[in-house]
Amino acid sequence: MELNITSPADFHVHLRQGAFSELVTPHIRKGGFHLAYVMPNLSPPITTTAQALAYRASLHAIDPSIEYLMTLYLSADLTPDEVRKAAEAGVVGVKSYPRGVTTNSDGGIESYEAYYPIFEVMEEVGMVLNLHGEVPSDAAKNIHVLNAEPTFLPHLLALHARFPALRIVLEHATTRAAVEAVKSCGNTVACTITAHHLALTVDDWAGQSWNYCKPVAKYPDDRAALREVIAEGHPRFFLGSDSAPHPPHSKSNSTPSHGCAAGIYTQPILLPLVAHVLESFGHLDKLEGFVSTFGRKFYAREAASTVPKVVLRKVQEEEGRIVDEVYAVGEQRVVPFWAGKGLRWEIVS
Amino acid sequence: MELNITSPADFHVHLRQGAFSELVTPHIRKGGFHLAYVMPNLSPPITTTAQALAYRASLHAIDPSIEYLMTLYLSADLTPDEVRKAAEAGVVGVKSYPRGVTTNSDGGIESYEAYYPIFEVMEEVGMVLNLHGEVPSDAAKNIHVLNAEPTFLPHLLALHARFPALRIVLEHATTRAAVEAVKSCGNTVACTITAHHLALTVDDWAGQSWNYCKPVAKYPDDRAALREVIAEGHPRFFLGSDSAPHPPHSKSNSTPSHGCAAGIYTQPILLPLVAHVLESFGHLDKLEGFVSTFGRKFYAREAASTVPKVVLRKVQEEEGRIVDEVYAVGEQRVVPFWAGKGLRWEIVS
Repeated sequence: MELNITSPADFHVHLRQGAFSELVTPHIRKGGFHLAYVMPNLSPPITTTAQALAYRASLHAIDPSIEYLMTLYLSADLTPDEVRKAAEAGVVGVKSYPRGVTTNSDGGIESYEAYYPIFEVMEEVGMVLNLHGEVPSDAAKNIHVLNAEPTFLPHLLALHARFPALRIVLEHATTRAAVEAVKSCGNTVACTITAHHLALTVDDWAGQSWNYCKPVAKYPDDRAALREVIAEGHPRFFLGSDSAPHPPHSKSNSTPSHGCAAGIYTQPILLPLVAHVLESFGHLDKLEGFVSTFGRKFYAREAASTVPKVVLRKVQEEEGRIVDEVYAVGEQRVVPFWAGKGLRWEIVS
Repeated sequence: MELNITSPADFHVHLRQGAFSELVTPHIRKGGFHLAYVMPNLSPPITTTAQALAYRASLHAIDPSIEYLMTLYLSADLTPDEVRKAAEAGVVGVKSYPRGVTTNSDGGIESYEAYYPIFEVMEEVGMVLNLHGEVPSDAAKNIHVLNAEPTFLPHLLALHARFPALRIVLEHATTRAAVEAVKSCGNTVACTITAHHLALTVDDWAGQSWNYCKPVAKYPDDRAALREVIAEGHPRFFLGSDSAPHPPHSKSNSTPSHGCAAGIYTQPILLPLVAHVLESFGHLDKLEGFVSTFGRKFYAREAASTVPKVVLRKVQEEEGRIVDEVYAVGEQRVVPFWAGKGLRWEIVS
């Protein structure tokens, strides 16, 4: 059995920088994708048009076959003028990180009001606002990693009410509450869903740091809500892998004082993984919409008719196609999600 | 500043077997305790009076200065006759594990009704029922590690209603719901609280396998409920450390396929740790009740007047007394909770 998918597009990708970027950037294509929406949380973050274009050039030098859509990091350094300049230069979006919540987010925002002038210009020039939708943990307010996303949702609704024409994407939604909030918004608000959040629940990262990411995978009912909105074929919910590579030593908990980086790396297995997971809950029929057409439509990046399709084939062997334990280039290493386990689908071409 | 504590008693202890037992058993005394209520989840589990007495003898051979209170493992192998025999031999309790929830719990119970004849005899002979109060995860029912304890509580209430004279201890409570459920019961129902659940929340084990235990630490509001019931000096809530030693290799997540054992090891630092944590939320005044008198009273094990007090001294150094990174005897290793961090209290004698 084969599946032909039109030009899959990953609307949330981390490609890092330097030698590590050389390891992971070719994995976009390896995972079956032709378009990567690139996150700006480098160190230092991508805050100017010039930085974004230089970063795109460095990625293009590694793999010229991918369409890279670039983003800026929302911070006090960003000006309305720079937003106009970025839009003219083809930068697509601006990413907002709550302060301190995830990798390289120390420069993230604490309150949105100060950014209203930025959002007005973004609305005018058609740039997209990408939201990491979590608030920082605060024990005194009973805010923790499990309710950080639901607690954020009023901010999403307030932004949409104030800027109804601004295209907003709630990134990597993990909860039923988030799905319902996005559904309740107009057509300018969309939502990405990762492959791993379709597979995992809190039980999978309890005691297993390799399955730890931000936002953390939530309860089974939340996972069910993510699956249901895909089963429904809702056009404002599409794939953004949030594939987040970290070196193996930062994912393992070798000693109590050695914390673990948040992130799950799905890039090199992405399309087979999504097919495998969608099939596991009976909705392989929704694959193309979820990984290609819905996201491309929201971002007005419909694939050209000349773009080749990706062909997936059902694996015949009972154990599936076993995912590599590690990927390496030179000194660089990264361990993929699903390492050592079988996937029911593989890419033919 | 010094504190004199009458004969601290730990009402939930894991001492393992073989060479590992030789490493951890002396840590009861090292941690400031004179009495250990010993869990029966060995491999194979302690299911007969003869096994319990042999186990006690092996512990006594390692450290004769501790009073070991022994328990049996509730399973289909346990008969009413064996319960009578155990009680006569001085075995104090029977521990119930839900199947598959924690270390060596594969033989645990699935439903309590079948054990009513056992509970009737226990009630008659005055044995205590110790409950690991969690139900197994079940994604289809939205049961996961965070709500496994609240979902169990109706079983506790039903058992208490059916056997009002049976002394029951809900072990290692972690939620506000559990605190309220135990409070709502009569004087035959008590509750142990661990030191680590007074310190941790879900954010502390997210991505940190060394802080992973069962039940998992819950939300900040749940931790607040545990602290509040201690602050209140409620006599049916007392210390059971659930100190659970595992070799370092089973606590680290070296690769994705290497899962992590559930358990946090507090035994060798237990009394200083409890003092440190109680002081952190302003209730050092409740230390003696929590670690000694309340539990001893419930179990009718009041300390003899000849038992020496344990003296704690406030550490003068700013950084506190730094906890060892590892404890070792021969080939055996165990890493304590709080390793490399400072405690504000230390044992003088």
